[in-house]
Amino acid sequence: DAPFALIAGPCQMESRDHAMMIAERMKRITEDLGIPYVFKASFDKANRTSLKGKRGIGLSGALPVFEEIGKTFDLPVLTDIHTEEQCREVASVVDILQIPAFLCRQTDLLVAAAETGRVVNIKKGQFLAPWDMKNVAAKVTDSGNPNVILTERGASFGYNTLVSDFRGLPIMAETGHPVVFDATHSVQQPGGQGGSSGGERRFVETLARAACAVGVAGLFIETHDDPDNAPSDGPNMVPLDRMPELLKRLKALDDLTKGF
Amino acid sequence: DAPFALIAGPCQMESRDHAMMIAERMKRITEDLGIPYVFKASFDKANRTSLKGKRGIGLSGALPVFEEIGKTFDLPVLTDIHTEEQCREVASVVDILQIPAFLCRQTDLLVAAAETGRVVNIKKGQFLAPWDMKNVAAKVTDSGNPNVILTERGASFGYNTLVSDFRGLPIMAETGHPVVFDATHSVQQPGGQGGSSGGERRFVETLARAACAVGVAGLFIETHDDPDNAPSDGPNMVPLDRMPELLKRLKALDDLTKGF
Amino acid sequence: DAPFALIAGPCQMESRDHAMMIAERMKRITEDLGIPYVFKASFDKANRTSLKGKRGIGLSGALPVFEEIGKTFDLPVLTDIHTEEQCREVASVVDILQIPAFLCRQTDLLVAAAETGRVVNIKKGQFLAPWDMKNVAAKVTDSGNPNVILTERGASFGYNTLVSDFRGLPIMAETGHPVVFDATHSVQQPGGQGGSSGGERRFVETLARAACAVGVAGLFIETHDDPDNAPSDGPNMVPLDRMPELLKRLKALDDLTKGF
Amino acid sequence: DAPFALIAGPCQMESRDHAMMIAERMKRITEDLGIPYVFKASFDKANRTSLKGKRGIGLSGALPVFEEIGKTFDLPVLTDIHTEEQCREVASVVDILQIPAFLCRQTDLLVAAAETGRVVNIKKGQFLAPWDMKNVAAKVTDSGNPNVILTERGASFGYNTLVSDFRGLPIMAETGHPVVFDATHSVQQPGGQGGSSGGERRFVETLARAACAVGVAGLFIETHDDPDNAPSDGPNMVPLDRMPELLKRLKALDDLTKGF
Repeated sequence: DAPFALIAGPCQMESRDHAMMIAERMKRITEDLGIPYVFKASFDKANRTSLKGKRGIGLSGALPVFEEIGKTFDLPVLTDIHTEEQCREVASVVDILQIPAFLCRQTDLLVAAAETGRVVNIKKGQFLAPWDMKNVAAKVTDSGNPNVILTERGASFGYNTLVSDFRGLPIMAETGHPVVFDATHSVQQPGGQGGSSGGERRFVETLARAACAVGVAGLFIETHDDPDNAPSDGPNMVPLDRMPELLKRLKALDDLTKGF
Repeated sequence: DAPFALIAGPCQMESRDHAMMIAERMKRITEDLGIPYVFKASFDKANRTSLKGKRGIGLSGALPVFEEIGKTFDLPVLTDIHTEEQCREVASVVDILQIPAFLCRQTDLLVAAAETGRVVNIKKGQFLAPWDMKNVAAKVTDSGNPNVILTERGASFGYNTLVSDFRGLPIMAETGHPVVFDATHSVQQPGGQGGSSGGERRFVETLARAACAVGVAGLFIETHDDPDNAPSDGPNMVPLDRMPELLKRLKALDDLTKGF
Repeated sequence: DAPFALIAGPCQMESRDHAMMIAERMKRITEDLGIPYVFKASFDKANRTSLKGKRGIGLSGALPVFEEIGKTFDLPVLTDIHTEEQCREVASVVDILQIPAFLCRQTDLLVAAAETGRVVNIKKGQFLAPWDMKNVAAKVTDSGNPNVILTERGASFGYNTLVSDFRGLPIMAETGHPVVFDATHSVQQPGGQGGSSGGERRFVETLARAACAVGVAGLFIETHDDPDNAPSDGPNMVPLDRMPELLKRLKALDDLTKGF
Repeated sequence: DAPFALIAGPCQMESRDHAMMIAERMKRITEDLGIPYVFKASFDKANRTSLKGKRGIGLSGALPVFEEIGKTFDLPVLTDIHTEEQCREVASVVDILQIPAFLCRQTDLLVAAAETGRVVNIKKGQFLAPWDMKNVAAKVTDSGNPNVILTERGASFGYNTLVSDFRGLPIMAETGHPVVFDATHSVQQPGGQGGSSGGERRFVETLARAACAVGVAGLFIETHDDPDNAPSDGPNMVPLDRMPELLKRLKALDDLTKGF
């Protein structure tokens, strides 16, 4: 029943300066509200809709920035990994290794992430029932690492559409692992723009509020100073300057719910 | 941004005494919490899974009870209608005529309900997108009756399963009509028990909390003193003695959200 | 393992002359191919997307035409009914009473149709699992009428989309009732054009071929001399002049499959 | 409009002798029927439901067997790859590299497979619309390899259920790439047995017949001499001794359809 933590940052790490700017602003916003904050960015968007989609600055470019952000702002950092080989190197700098939803059934990746000893945040596949995540989590815990987070990010609902089933949050919580709701990927429209994925930013607050009322250990929200010109996931990211008001509301809901 | 109203009562009207008992208890519970209350019961369950399912006491048996409840407890009452012929007679006593979800596209029924001048609560079909409810509502308003309520009660998600898409609440609210969330039918498992529908009562609070956080004009919750022995919808009704605590939480969420 | 029968005709009965013209042409086409033929038309489209959608010539206008078609061309005729009151009158002239998909759970309608003694064709609701149709069929057979046909016409798949699950055909056939595949409504996009339903005519043959390969007692195909100007369901009806070639292929598939 | 090719074999390579036995029997069966045959087996089941699920004999154990099968029986062989590193080594022996459905959006894997110059068979993700596969295929063709096959294996439909949308076959065929229907994974019930995936073998023929009637370049069918004791995918594999009859029917359907 601890207050929710926030995992937030840009979809992809675009540059050192951009990442530092967002970390600094998010640090200030979350400190003002008393929300524990984890900086998030991807060094590589490994599953873009199209070969032409921008993929980020890469592992070697990103690791020093994660380290700098962690030290400068005294923040834990999270990033997603895509291959077993990346796990150890990323874990030398990053606090939470995230398993992408499409990869949540890849045993070797889960085991390699587990073996780093870092916290492993597993996104629930769009193709999985919430009760099936206990098998997924067990691949990490049976590898000797009890530090698992499970993240809901929407389930396939017909074509090019996701739906958020909020029954999934208490179901996944029965595993004993903290459950996070990813409010920005849950409003994605996969493949919905032909060459890239669409999204409906206007429903981020709708779904995040629902999650807080149901009860979550954490929220995951991608944010950007200029989402409409971001290299990926623009349609669903929240503008940075709208984060304070959004988080204030979510914090109030969380405070109320955790008091029940 | 008015506080939510509650539509509640037993799934079917079992007897005069049973209906009066529930109305009285719910009246007291909602008065204590300052929640506007509408008594609900069905006089006929017209679409049971099996021919053997109990259907209720019928129209002629129920109307005097609705009248007595309305007068005794000074409450508006709601019931669902299934044929055009029933509309006028039911409207002589009942304040809100409800269109069942399966029937929400039946033009003649909508028009007949509209022509009574009573408020018409239309449940969204499990097969309909939220944006398609504006056409449904227009069948009533174009018949000269502006008093429409739209109720979400889950969308088909694979077989024997419903999912509640909370994006639907703000989408339906764009029509300008009050939007109600039906928290007990949304946890139904249609046909899920072979000869009758199953349900997961434990998720009623989960979904109702989500709805309040998103923002609704009303909640619809079926309740019973002994759900496990109720003639219909037992698996998803909320026990009467758990209503005060449930409503207290929902009221707190609603107060908070409406203040945003 | 009898060859498939064809239920075909315009979506709605537009006029006596138009219905006679289609019956005559379809009679000739099906005779050439040795396909048993049932004429189909609706006298009332009771669940149009919008109040403005054309609804057909009505019951009293249509019954004499059904009678004339039956006698002139020696054909069984089928139409859909929407209320209990219509059943007896329609049954005086029409050979097969059809229960619309949205109404397939309305007990009184099923019983009233059953009591006419006519064959009852029940369309599977878009919200129902194929295994749940045995309960629906039992409402008719338990009312003393063993003559039930079950028709597949697509299941809800996300919003504004249907999907045809061909496992449903053998599952429904386990009831012992003949199973029909409705190839034109299965390609509907419900509500998909805002004020009316869309459809993808180009997939009618795709799905009808699949159904024949799986094995069906009948096919249901709406056809029109000028679908693009038809008052309803134009986007999914098959042009009359393309029926001979389509049916020839389906007949060949049926002959092959029934010989397995 | 060439006759369909068959990709078949055991879910996983269990041993050299077992693989040789199946290859030999399938070679004889398909030669008798005039069906071009591709031997299929997985050297590693990389995404089992549980950590305890058997994974196969591994890359180094499997490659010599693939080579021996190819040479002994003069057969092309197919296997699935999971990492970029595997591509080159596998391609030295194997004719068709298969991208697993969960991995179909992993750009680096697609590019690495493409760069081997071998045929790349991409399984459509359970979370993807058929029209989105053109972007996936383009990641291979834009890498200089035009030899792409697209395989349908079911789409997410609620929880623990897949549905086969046969409209997807002609939609994917519009890319110009050969389209294969995977009839055994399409009847899987993902995660449906708690610790492993279930399946409904009885629908393999249903769906394969539908696919042949619609028109496919190939079929993918996993087979085993003793499916109920197979280390993976037993519930959906076809017993070897039932393959001749099944293939005879599918061949007849294919012959008929390709003649249209």
